[in-house]
Amino acid sequence: MQNRQIRYVKRPTGALGVDTFELGEAPMPQPAAGEVLCRNLLVSIDPANRAWMQGATYRSQLNEGDVMAGYGLAEVIEGADGIAAGSIVGGDFGWQEYAVLPAGQVEPLAVEGELSHYMSILGITGLTAYFGLLSVGRPAAGETVLVSGAAGATGNVVGQLAKLHGCRVVGIVGNAEKAAFLTDELGFDAAVNYRSETYYQDLKAACPDRVDVYFDNVGGQTLEYALRLLNQHGRIVCCGSVSAYDGEAPEAGPRGVPGLITTKRIRMEGLLVFDFQDEFDQARAQLRSWVEDGKVKVVQDVLEGIEQLPQALVGLLAGENVGKRMVRVAEQS
Amino acid sequence: MQNRQIRYVKRPTGALGVDTFELGEAPMPQPAAGEVLCRNLLVSIDPANRAWMQGATYRSQLNEGDVMAGYGLAEVIEGADGIAAGSIVGGDFGWQEYAVLPAGQVEPLAVEGELSHYMSILGITGLTAYFGLLSVGRPAAGETVLVSGAAGATGNVVGQLAKLHGCRVVGIVGNAEKAAFLTDELGFDAAVNYRSETYYQDLKAACPDRVDVYFDNVGGQTLEYALRLLNQHGRIVCCGSVSAYDGEAPEAGPRGVPGLITTKRIRMEGLLVFDFQDEFDQARAQLRSWVEDGKVKVVQDVLEGIEQLPQALVGLLAGENVGKRMVRVAEQS
Repeated sequence: MQNRQIRYVKRPTGALGVDTFELGEAPMPQPAAGEVLCRNLLVSIDPANRAWMQGATYRSQLNEGDVMAGYGLAEVIEGADGIAAGSIVGGDFGWQEYAVLPAGQVEPLAVEGELSHYMSILGITGLTAYFGLLSVGRPAAGETVLVSGAAGATGNVVGQLAKLHGCRVVGIVGNAEKAAFLTDELGFDAAVNYRSETYYQDLKAACPDRVDVYFDNVGGQTLEYALRLLNQHGRIVCCGSVSAYDGEAPEAGPRGVPGLITTKRIRMEGLLVFDFQDEFDQARAQLRSWVEDGKVKVVQDVLEGIEQLPQALVGLLAGENVGKRMVRVAEQS
Repeated sequence: MQNRQIRYVKRPTGALGVDTFELGEAPMPQPAAGEVLCRNLLVSIDPANRAWMQGATYRSQLNEGDVMAGYGLAEVIEGADGIAAGSIVGGDFGWQEYAVLPAGQVEPLAVEGELSHYMSILGITGLTAYFGLLSVGRPAAGETVLVSGAAGATGNVVGQLAKLHGCRVVGIVGNAEKAAFLTDELGFDAAVNYRSETYYQDLKAACPDRVDVYFDNVGGQTLEYALRLLNQHGRIVCCGSVSAYDGEAPEAGPRGVPGLITTKRIRMEGLLVFDFQDEFDQARAQLRSWVEDGKVKVVQDVLEGIEQLPQALVGLLAGENVGKRMVRVAEQS
């Protein structure tokens, strides 16, 4: 039996194309002592996948020839060190059907209900929204929360959670359909299209009391605008800078740093959800109850089949998804 | 009797020159009800004076023809509303011998000891160092604190306080004499000259454990370098950006924002000392006791005579001062 896998074969220099990847086969991997053999079920598609190609981030840079890295949910085929065969685990299984990892590098998940929710609302992106907004941004009721990438996996949850906490919520998106989805389906107070010629004016109009918390998924010009719109003692949650991923590293940072940071006493803080690992269970319980009560909607975009992976990422970077994008590589047995 | 004053007559377009100012005379101002008449004793010279010419900051932009704004310590000649004649007050008296202000706009000071200390270690810059380092930067013993403008009024105090708190302290300055002063006289562990051709290498060598808290007085390239040198969960105290004051507003911000902020989970936070006004008395008592115990040295640079004010500011922006620069306009009676 062979293991189908997609390799990262060519470092992209501009916008990502599918020629960065190559589908191939390898022999089934064999676990050594202390390792688990996993069958990949769902592979997560994230803007950060593209950033890994630019240089070291919170993980080391990708090397050409590697199996493309990627978070996934998998079923354990051969267990080890307390990870039982048949259980569901999360980990960096990469873009392949089967993977072998040290038992300590997979996260056992006590799945209740829909598996895919552990990749969206109960997964990394839902938890990122939860801790980023509530533990880093810390908005008070009545404050204005602005979020970019607002129809994306993290952004849509940020907006919904901010509404639950009594905030005015404004989302930034790349087309009118997404804008309508946020206001009509998810309860956002307003949504602004960053491709509009009157983008900054639109933002100002959507934020009559300006902005108290800006949840930044994109960086770049939108971050510059947010700095201008922030109130004194405003907060910026630095979650990602997708505007800068799909190309070379940016030449310069946003105007207003550090000038506006200083004069407005802004707090700008980086967020990596794994810093909150000890609180994941508690956060998942809270998020699950909000979903069950209909207070938070789960927005997913599931593609089918391992061969869809390259195009799934290319399309994500072009902004075609609404909600959490993932690829189903195999059905749960 | 006339009131000598220095007016701001020409908005500078590049580096500040003395032709921005004009010495003149006006009739003695007369206090109305609720106003106090003050005689200026010491005028503070601050990099922020230059920033006020660029646009609105925490105060409105200066207008051509105005008496140049500036913080000072003054003696009350005619009191009002509980501000007694003969008492010492702080306030924005401007660059002039006499000023009239509403009683609510002056700060009564219970001066003990040397008056000039209320402009340096017990004044705005000493308090800025105190709250910026201890309340915003929050270094732990053993951490590395990097401070720019380190021979300046705020920077020298930041470094001394960080030493008191058990940190490794590295200062950034503009010449070898200042560097030697910091290490030989103030106990800094190392000092780096930003004009060195091997500036970044020098910084790296001076920070073998990299940087945990960067106290930023300058912005610009030094801020970029600090972002690269910061450890995970590092903090940046945004206190000023003097590199950007003496010219037009900068075109772009530092590289690494928001990328490195995110991946290293840096907290970057603006500081304005007036947010801590309720704690000033307590901080002054603490700072005074450290000075009395010889744990903190008071570093001052006092020029004499109102006509020195323009050159005092031009020279400050060129980096000629060590410690807190001020101009004595009159002797205390």
